[in-house]
Amino acid sequence: MRFTSERRLDDGVLEREFTLGEIPGTLWTPESAAPAPLILLGHPPLGLRRMHPRLVARARHAAADGFATATIELPGSGDRPRWDAVEQARAALRRAVEAGEPVSEEIIDALVLPLVDKAVPEWQAALDALLALPEIGGPVGYSGGVISIGIRLAVVEPRIAAAVFFAGSLVPRAMFEEARHVTVPLHVLLQWDDEGNDRQAALDLFDAFGTKEKTLQANMGGHTGVPQFAGDAAAQFFTRHLK
Amino acid sequence: MRFTSERRLDDGVLEREFTLGEIPGTLWTPESAAPAPLILLGHPPLGLRRMHPRLVARARHAAADGFATATIELPGSGDRPRWDAVEQARAALRRAVEAGEPVSEEIIDALVLPLVDKAVPEWQAALDALLALPEIGGPVGYSGGVISIGIRLAVVEPRIAAAVFFAGSLVPRAMFEEARHVTVPLHVLLQWDDEGNDRQAALDLFDAFGTKEKTLQANMGGHTGVPQFAGDAAAQFFTRHLK
Repeated sequence: MRFTSERRLDDGVLEREFTLGEIPGTLWTPESAAPAPLILLGHPPLGLRRMHPRLVARARHAAADGFATATIELPGSGDRPRWDAVEQARAALRRAVEAGEPVSEEIIDALVLPLVDKAVPEWQAALDALLALPEIGGPVGYSGGVISIGIRLAVVEPRIAAAVFFAGSLVPRAMFEEARHVTVPLHVLLQWDDEGNDRQAALDLFDAFGTKEKTLQANMGGHTGVPQFAGDAAAQFFTRHLK
Repeated sequence: MRFTSERRLDDGVLEREFTLGEIPGTLWTPESAAPAPLILLGHPPLGLRRMHPRLVARARHAAADGFATATIELPGSGDRPRWDAVEQARAALRRAVEAGEPVSEEIIDALVLPLVDKAVPEWQAALDALLALPEIGGPVGYSGGVISIGIRLAVVEPRIAAAVFFAGSLVPRAMFEEARHVTVPLHVLLQWDDEGNDRQAALDLFDAFGTKEKTLQANMGGHTGVPQFAGDAAAQFFTRHLK
């Protein structure tokens, strides 16, 4: 892990870009001296640069609660090399959506499963590097982004102690089975009128999670309309479980 | 409205029993001098005496946030005269449940609709009396209890500015239509594994509410297993909307 840039935001948060091998990432740490618990910030595969305004807002919010946050670029996104298999699946998805056709399970599987298989070990490697820094302590939370990545990570990575999921992604059927093996506390956000999301599938997935402590918080509005108070509730969930 | 008893709880909350005509009720006010916003505490038709431990816990929690709370006995419950029509509907409900039969819409209508028709004007009369007290200010919230009473009250009573509903009651089909006319902000709690509640009906009812700002918070566990943090979230909802 190599830091490549550093800047101090006006609220005292230190934002550092890094590379982990070929993978770009960003770490935000609060001003406080003590080792901070860490939240991994998931994001959709749109590239870190494009996602930066939203990520930095989440990082500042978490820092105000005493959390460090970090994220890495997803395979095939942003400045990372194009990835033909996923590009083809994205093109198939676009064609289906533009034609007004239902998105088939084949398209969803081709779009998501390779991404999960490749991304999860990368997030685990990032976790190794981040937890070796003196300013980062455990435990670790995972928040948002591609829900299937979060599910796999929560199942295979014992250092993840709690997760906030955003029920706004296309979820392969296979992930419903993996969801049964999630045992950490979950806080699941659902946008009730999300145009890109099947509400019933989101409710079924929430039902499938094997954990004993899970909360579904559904709010009005579309995919990007998550209200401020829902962000606050998610932050309180992490404070309850990671502090 | 006539106060009949008064005691000071150890956290400074003043608990006063009153009668409003023939109807017993209780008012809890925080120690602070300023007029406090009011939350009406709904409850199931089990009698105020039996519900007292849970009501006083809710009242103390609300008082800590600066709210006054009040409740009145439901028609046919507690020390109020038996009410044959509702007694018969309750007996029919018990028979159906004990026989393992589905509870028919006729039973639900007979159980709930007369209660709504009679209780709502009583809660409005209580509101008149309570808002005339110098220690009570607006705006007013309604919380919990028989959800159909809350729905009707939210529709017909303009002084209700926000409501927390507990999706744990038998809801007549007619109330789904009334729900479309609710326009105040709502926070709806659903116990995901509530043995006495149809989950799909609860989701359909949430969907039916006509208000633009509504949140569904679903948590694990049965009817009486609402977790502490869900109570906190409901309290934050009232603080956002009534202060």
